[in-house]
Amino acid sequence: MFESAKGLIGRVLAGSILSLGLAVLPAFAADPLPSWNDGESKSAIVDFVTAVSTEGGPDFVAPADRIATFDNDGTLWAEQPMYVQLAFVLDRIKVLAPEHPDWQGTEPFKSALAGDMAGVAASGEAGLLQLLAATHSGMTSVEFTQIVSDWVAKAKHPETGKLYTAMIYQPMLELIRYLKANDFDVFIVSGGGIEFMRPWTEQVYGIPPQNVVGSTIETTFEMRDGGPVLLRGEHVSFIDDGPGKPVGIQTHIGKHPIAAFGNSDGDLQMLQWVTSGPGKRFGGIVHHDDEKREYAYDRKSHFGKLDKALDLAPSQGWQVFSIKQDWKSVHPQ
Amino acid sequence: MFESAKGLIGRVLAGSILSLGLAVLPAFAADPLPSWNDGESKSAIVDFVTAVSTEGGPDFVAPADRIATFDNDGTLWAEQPMYVQLAFVLDRIKVLAPEHPDWQGTEPFKSALAGDMAGVAASGEAGLLQLLAATHSGMTSVEFTQIVSDWVAKAKHPETGKLYTAMIYQPMLELIRYLKANDFDVFIVSGGGIEFMRPWTEQVYGIPPQNVVGSTIETTFEMRDGGPVLLRGEHVSFIDDGPGKPVGIQTHIGKHPIAAFGNSDGDLQMLQWVTSGPGKRFGGIVHHDDEKREYAYDRKSHFGKLDKALDLAPSQGWQVFSIKQDWKSVHPQ
Repeated sequence: MFESAKGLIGRVLAGSILSLGLAVLPAFAADPLPSWNDGESKSAIVDFVTAVSTEGGPDFVAPADRIATFDNDGTLWAEQPMYVQLAFVLDRIKVLAPEHPDWQGTEPFKSALAGDMAGVAASGEAGLLQLLAATHSGMTSVEFTQIVSDWVAKAKHPETGKLYTAMIYQPMLELIRYLKANDFDVFIVSGGGIEFMRPWTEQVYGIPPQNVVGSTIETTFEMRDGGPVLLRGEHVSFIDDGPGKPVGIQTHIGKHPIAAFGNSDGDLQMLQWVTSGPGKRFGGIVHHDDEKREYAYDRKSHFGKLDKALDLAPSQGWQVFSIKQDWKSVHPQ
Repeated sequence: MFESAKGLIGRVLAGSILSLGLAVLPAFAADPLPSWNDGESKSAIVDFVTAVSTEGGPDFVAPADRIATFDNDGTLWAEQPMYVQLAFVLDRIKVLAPEHPDWQGTEPFKSALAGDMAGVAASGEAGLLQLLAATHSGMTSVEFTQIVSDWVAKAKHPETGKLYTAMIYQPMLELIRYLKANDFDVFIVSGGGIEFMRPWTEQVYGIPPQNVVGSTIETTFEMRDGGPVLLRGEHVSFIDDGPGKPVGIQTHIGKHPIAAFGNSDGDLQMLQWVTSGPGKRFGGIVHHDDEKREYAYDRKSHFGKLDKALDLAPSQGWQVFSIKQDWKSVHPQ
């Protein structure tokens, strides 16, 4: 839907240029981030983008090297009251339960079916991996893509009743578009499953599958009667979180990005990596401090814990985006 | 150097259009593949590209889905008398030998230093992994990139005395450019090391790092006094060959390509994967059958063995490119 809107804006803009001359351009360029309040965060973003894209300027970066990476959960869309992918897991367990009568008496499935999150948590990492294996493996990549697409098209946030894809952050969407308009190549680098994100990121954020980096499950090629398939196994082959993020960036992109945006300690190493090195660089942290319009959490949160990165932000020159102060609106209207 | 040539051609062409009107365009469009002889292979390529890029036609494919994948060794550059990366390994062993006096009496290093390939081969896969570990790990990604760049800038093919980057195939370079000119997103999908290719693929083929898929070595993030680094370990974490190629495509691209080009059984599963599914698809195999201008090898070769894929080509509709028949010239002049 956003792509269509973008296309529409493009056509209207082109029409305006043709009918009104170029007068419309400065007005459009003057506010590329309409959902951001004027202030330090917005200025820092605009100053950075202007500096690296001003040809002949001291901080100019060639378009091919303008790479920006974004975390997803808590940075581009809501991660409370739980990660969206965990909500997907719990929904899938319910859908699959009739085929697995034994789950009624076996943990962690019993707790998951009862919606008892404390019980699920008590099963620890081993329990979570069991839930993940039961819902994310044993099918082909094509089948999994369909399952995710069907779910994301109708699953709703438990508190707002909106589609999860409507729980994205409008200011961050504008930031992605602003960067792309200035020839940045924009990537998602998320701890979430790569094939859980790819079915919808292009439509929702304008970020195509090849620009999505995430955690992966071991996948094997198999020739079947109906043709070749890629089969999703149970073994998690790469965790794209914490120190895994710079590794995921190196493997998938092979270039050193110049801007990174995150919201938790899971993004700490990505911020360290991206903002190191010569030339102008940008590190941005979304700080969830708005209990009225969204959520307020940081150092003690189960999901999206932000502690060390928040401490390091001032000395590292990372810009902390306050949702309360910096964002005019939170979600698309 | 090729990028400059391309830029030059673009400028000359633009100048021609300005001075001569559009008359120059049909002539240019008429022969996008000047180093290919007229014949079945050239026609098949042109017919395919025309079909998928003709808007409104029955085989039209949206630009975002025009993905093409190319093997590298033996498909884009020479792989005889040995893989270029193996020549790099042997050269590096010689450079590093003074720091490792024990290598003089220890296999597989002893044979490698003596240039005794039979001795190296006798050490088996374990021996090759030892050579790989000694030359590809223990440094940062930045350091390895520098080592590869320095080597590739001066290492020469043992038989022609040319730089390895001059041992690329001119007709395939034209094919890449022809696909890109028709809005294809072109990727390399090679069994070679991803960080061995990325330092030079953009300059040589016009394919940027993020479009290079290859085998990977386990890499870890580390904070050092001088800042964060990515450290290359000894463990091979992914082998992008044979059944690994469709997996590499899925992980890095996340889309189903519509065209694939290879030259050996290591490309068999990529060809099977890419040419399966609905819509028009293209599978191409470079057949090394020209002992005069290049090399003649297939079913019994140590490097680039082509056996099963050659047998399957007719029934699968894969186009076999005969270097002898189809290519007017082999390497750039």
